Amino acid sequence: MNNAKSSIPNQVVAAIKEAIGEKPAQLHEPSFEGNEWSYLKECLDSTYVSSVGKFVDKFESDLAIYTGVKYAITVTNGTAALHIALLLAGVEPKDEVLIPALTFVATANAVAYCNATPHFVDSEEKTLGVDAPKLRNYLEQNTTQKNGNCVNKKSGNVIRALVPMHTFGHPSNLSELVALADEYNLVLIEDAAESLGSFYKGQHTGTFGLMGVLSFNGNKTITTGGGGAILTNNEAIARRAKHLTTTAKLPHKWEFIHDEIGFNYRMPNINAALGCAQLEQLSLKLASKKKLHDLYKDSFSKFEEIELFDEPADTSSNYWLQAILISKEFDYLRDEILSETNNSGYMTRPVWGLLNELSQFKNSPTMNLDGARDLARRVINIPSSPNLAGRKK
Amino acid sequence: MNNAKSSIPNQVVAAIKEAIGEKPAQLHEPSFEGNEWSYLKECLDSTYVSSVGKFVDKFESDLAIYTGVKYAITVTNGTAALHIALLLAGVEPKDEVLIPALTFVATANAVAYCNATPHFVDSEEKTLGVDAPKLRNYLEQNTTQKNGNCVNKKSGNVIRALVPMHTFGHPSNLSELVALADEYNLVLIEDAAESLGSFYKGQHTGTFGLMGVLSFNGNKTITTGGGGAILTNNEAIARRAKHLTTTAKLPHKWEFIHDEIGFNYRMPNINAALGCAQLEQLSLKLASKKKLHDLYKDSFSKFEEIELFDEPADTSSNYWLQAILISKEFDYLRDEILSETNNSGYMTRPVWGLLNELSQFKNSPTMNLDGARDLARRVINIPSSPNLAGRKK
Repeated sequence: MNNAKSSIPNQVVAAIKEAIGEKPAQLHEPSFEGNEWSYLKECLDSTYVSSVGKFVDKFESDLAIYTGVKYAITVTNGTAALHIALLLAGVEPKDEVLIPALTFVATANAVAYCNATPHFVDSEEKTLGVDAPKLRNYLEQNTTQKNGNCVNKKSGNVIRALVPMHTFGHPSNLSELVALADEYNLVLIEDAAESLGSFYKGQHTGTFGLMGVLSFNGNKTITTGGGGAILTNNEAIARRAKHLTTTAKLPHKWEFIHDEIGFNYRMPNINAALGCAQLEQLSLKLASKKKLHDLYKDSFSKFEEIELFDEPADTSSNYWLQAILISKEFDYLRDEILSETNNSGYMTRPVWGLLNELSQFKNSPTMNLDGARDLARRVINIPSSPNLAGRKK
Repeated sequence: MNNAKSSIPNQVVAAIKEAIGEKPAQLHEPSFEGNEWSYLKECLDSTYVSSVGKFVDKFESDLAIYTGVKYAITVTNGTAALHIALLLAGVEPKDEVLIPALTFVATANAVAYCNATPHFVDSEEKTLGVDAPKLRNYLEQNTTQKNGNCVNKKSGNVIRALVPMHTFGHPSNLSELVALADEYNLVLIEDAAESLGSFYKGQHTGTFGLMGVLSFNGNKTITTGGGGAILTNNEAIARRAKHLTTTAKLPHKWEFIHDEIGFNYRMPNINAALGCAQLEQLSLKLASKKKLHDLYKDSFSKFEEIELFDEPADTSSNYWLQAILISKEFDYLRDEILSETNNSGYMTRPVWGLLNELSQFKNSPTMNLDGARDLARRVINIPSSPNLAGRKK
């Protein structure tokens, strides 16, 4: 029994090797196999590398078409997109915003930039996202409606918005979350930073709420170096998002009139050029990532103690990061598995630590987080770059 | 008399034409004549386009060497650099920060991001920057020292920092401003967004205070598409700046621990690659801009009503934007000159409107701004791209 347990980390290494071969592998690397080079050259030749240029317009239009929304507004990164989305949702100082405790710190930071407070909610194993039934129960018991606002009974503050995040690209339980936001008067903003290319019942993630947010960081499915976008079907929101992210300057031939406190969050044309080329290759990347999932599925199928995470029912996931779940009985092996795999040249990592445990958020309101805590002990991401599929041969 | 007056706008057009030839000209265009192409290719080939990569380190090191500071920390743009510099100067909610009313809106916005208030100061014709003697007199009368802080007698709030800006690249009166900051216990942060390549008494602008801030926007002397940097000689500040601009994550093989509210302000490697190539060409660009100034000097020398702005005494300016000053008697011709030049294909623009006149800052404290108001009526920027020098032949 002891022998069997201690060999699990080695078996994980063997399963990864079986799927992707012996060579070391990063967690997620970008690849540039299309028009990146020619679009960048076009930027330099035209001298339009910065605030104006056709690639920003084209990338925004291409993103809107691909995700099926009316408007996409590109910005410097996903954090900036979240910040502006929260402001446009009407988040005010002292408001609370419901976000998963199990997510990247950017979501909580963006709430803090609005001088508002993150209010942490639990996650479920089924989707790795917000546990909607548990949240419904929590809101039922802990909030009251006042003047059309959802108010935290304990703090007395308005809970303005709900920001679910589609973990590793896997869509959350959107039907339930949309219903919840509607019933409790919460603005729904989807943090789709990880889920470009992921669909829920055939509709692209990030398009179910008033706004959705994408990221094109270097480790994402497609990259612009650094970048993000706000998705919306609301014309007024789209116009305000463009205005706020470009210093709130009013159009004029030469006068500088800015009519509110704005931000310098626009995506430079050179980064958008990269994005245009990357987006053209998205379907190929998604196919490779699905193929990689199938390879891992085979090689991890013999495990009883470890399960490869599959896309939730009714969804098509981009499988941004492949994840294995250690069974509860063996969760104490997490760090050993992390060490063994990393020492063998395969970059792996656990999911984020719970945000409510960070010192800067330790006084934020939170519901019971048993689900998230359990996942944090059991989830490990394994190498997920699209070019790993078929690398073995 | 009427005839003579109305012909001034036409004479301005003629003087610009004499200097740079008949072809239309933008206000300031970037040019890419060095290693931009090969460095970008290196980024794509290595796949390091994003958060890590050698060009970020190299650009930071090259900037530090060029400007003569110990540390340069690159960020997404000048606004982000200002925001972080103000936070690291200890600017707290309700504090006031002295900034010129005559500057780009980013400076005031960055103060607002800290939940602090811009306190507007006047500018002088000699440098186009902060009028230091007038500011001294104002501080003398309107502030008091409490516990080592400079306190605004009227509002009762601490005036934490002084942020002079080197307008169009021309160094402000730094000797006086350094002395003032020292005497009144103000943290000095130089907004050197426009003055890369400008020196005051042989020392690079942006290196006189606790921190300095650079911008590499598309219209600047060198560009990274979008980008900025914080300059400092203080190791602790440099370390904190890097930490705060990269989500305040503590180093760990796989854990995500962020020990304070951080920002996603890092410059992507692909933008830094452009910066490295551009910085290699800075001295050539500066020489061209000086030559362009000489051409304008000749063609505007016949005017009595209009003066081409020269670098202040004891300085070497980068001449980022060439500026003409209309004599006070003819300041009512400003908009006519702007129309006539723009209609003739030469892009010109006035200086920014005074920030205290924007609705979002109209309740901010301000000193008498007669100097700035006078300059706003009389200054016009004319085409300034380095490649305009010698274009005529």
